[in-house]
Amino acid sequence: MISLEDVQQARERIRPYIHETPLLSSEQLSRELGVNLYFKAEHLQKVGAFKARGAANTVFSLTEQEAQRGVATHSSGNHGAALARAAQLRGIPAHVVVPENANTTKVAAIEGYGAEIIRCESTLEAREKTLAETVEKTGAVVVHPYDDPRVIAGQGTCALEILEQMKSHREKLTAVITPVGGGGLLAGTATVMKAKSHASVFGAEPSGADDAYRSFQSGVRVTDHDPQTIADGLRTTLGEHNFQIIQEAVDDILLVDEAEIVAAMRLIWTRLKQVIEPSSAVCLAALIKNRERFQGQTVCLVLTGGNVDLSNLPF
Amino acid sequence: MISLEDVQQARERIRPYIHETPLLSSEQLSRELGVNLYFKAEHLQKVGAFKARGAANTVFSLTEQEAQRGVATHSSGNHGAALARAAQLRGIPAHVVVPENANTTKVAAIEGYGAEIIRCESTLEAREKTLAETVEKTGAVVVHPYDDPRVIAGQGTCALEILEQMKSHREKLTAVITPVGGGGLLAGTATVMKAKSHASVFGAEPSGADDAYRSFQSGVRVTDHDPQTIADGLRTTLGEHNFQIIQEAVDDILLVDEAEIVAAMRLIWTRLKQVIEPSSAVCLAALIKNRERFQGQTVCLVLTGGNVDLSNLPF
Repeated sequence: MISLEDVQQARERIRPYIHETPLLSSEQLSRELGVNLYFKAEHLQKVGAFKARGAANTVFSLTEQEAQRGVATHSSGNHGAALARAAQLRGIPAHVVVPENANTTKVAAIEGYGAEIIRCESTLEAREKTLAETVEKTGAVVVHPYDDPRVIAGQGTCALEILEQMKSHREKLTAVITPVGGGGLLAGTATVMKAKSHASVFGAEPSGADDAYRSFQSGVRVTDHDPQTIADGLRTTLGEHNFQIIQEAVDDILLVDEAEIVAAMRLIWTRLKQVIEPSSAVCLAALIKNRERFQGQTVCLVLTGGNVDLSNLPF
Repeated sequence: MISLEDVQQARERIRPYIHETPLLSSEQLSRELGVNLYFKAEHLQKVGAFKARGAANTVFSLTEQEAQRGVATHSSGNHGAALARAAQLRGIPAHVVVPENANTTKVAAIEGYGAEIIRCESTLEAREKTLAETVEKTGAVVVHPYDDPRVIAGQGTCALEILEQMKSHREKLTAVITPVGGGGLLAGTATVMKAKSHASVFGAEPSGADDAYRSFQSGVRVTDHDPQTIADGLRTTLGEHNFQIIQEAVDDILLVDEAEIVAAMRLIWTRLKQVIEPSSAVCLAALIKNRERFQGQTVCLVLTGGNVDLSNLPF
């Protein structure tokens, strides 16, 4: 589907437009959990989320002719902001379909990057219908939030950085956990890890949005899905390209409950002093829930974003 | 009072016990404010606050004989935790007098480091009386939260790091702003800056706890003082040693209102994605309020601590 080379090319393409985010650690938390823990700080990425990577890779992969038509997408938030920013950097218009239940902070960011916002209902059906109408009207090129090889390759660049940074810490990574929503980050990460390391790759998913888990278990992609979770970035349906890669290259999908997500979020805010959104907390929640499985290992969790609505916190 | 050498010696003494914290930046915020802004991340310090520095310097300055008596203090939070931790590292007992209005997260940290906690009313009088009783009972050596040359020298080590880190960024610092409560950090910072740089030094203080401002303006240390502010780390009265140094070496004290503190706190949480406590936000609030004064300058703000009570946020 996508190769290590695609990810390496994506990295060169987006290098001028993204941050190499730091790898954080907490001695105390590592000691308490009995796991040598690292956190990849993608909440400190441009637009406050890893989505800056895939969107930049796709927008800067477009031909001149394609680019002139502008870009469009549907997004619950971070991908929309990332696409709006990438389009602004390339000097082309962006149209973003936003579901009603989207986080207001994220919607404000999309507007801040100069995109046109089109509202719709929260279902996948409504999002896709509204996006189709927008494309018909504007002629824009659709940049899917995750079900696109260019997006997957872009998200995979994060894993390349993790491997380099672990090396400079003289640590050997044994496992990496990323959240799974549409599966862009997980698929990109798995592609890189299987090609360049012996680390196991896990997806972490809210029980209330367990389509990736059910797809992975059954071997058939689940699309009948009504996600209910505080992790607003993960209220998406696993993509087709994504599912194929995940089936091949991911070791397991770990489910966590809402209370576990909030507790893990609180722990990251308190111990790491980092503002991360609920979607970022599912990895630590999964690690804590499966603590014995990870005992003594060196594990990297991806903190995917930090765009939280401060007026609507779960504490 | 204290010299650059005292601070340099403190640095060597505490090096094994503290973090060299990173210097953070935000391109977007710098651009918006027209100020080249850096943030010294002392909320990522051990115990989540710069107070780890002064407490470690004092505890590890004690003679064997003094140390065996244990240490005692009164503290609204971070100094108490810092002293408890330093005492634990040296293997001696710590007794901490805590006012009723102290932040519960901070009190839990003091307990976590194994100190004995003694509760009292919130006034300076009650704190001092209870501390005197504790010392009478235990024979412990008092480590004042700020009015002590060893504590001031310890807090000054943060400024040494700032100067080195700015140098490695090839930036020339023109001003530094620290919060002022008891005045330990501000006095230590001013000592270093006046000896080693041409940067101006400012204290930032809540209008509702403006004893440093009034003392600085009148030339007489104000002790009649009923602080009312969300910045719980700054509800202290300016110390005597501190006042003398501040009068000599500080350029100005800048006042900010409560709403300005909360807005600045929100900005740091949103843009820098860093969990900082209200006391840390007064510097950015002061910078924004005095924006024109700092136009085009290279300014470092000290983020003093990150021990916020997540169940009691101002958002």
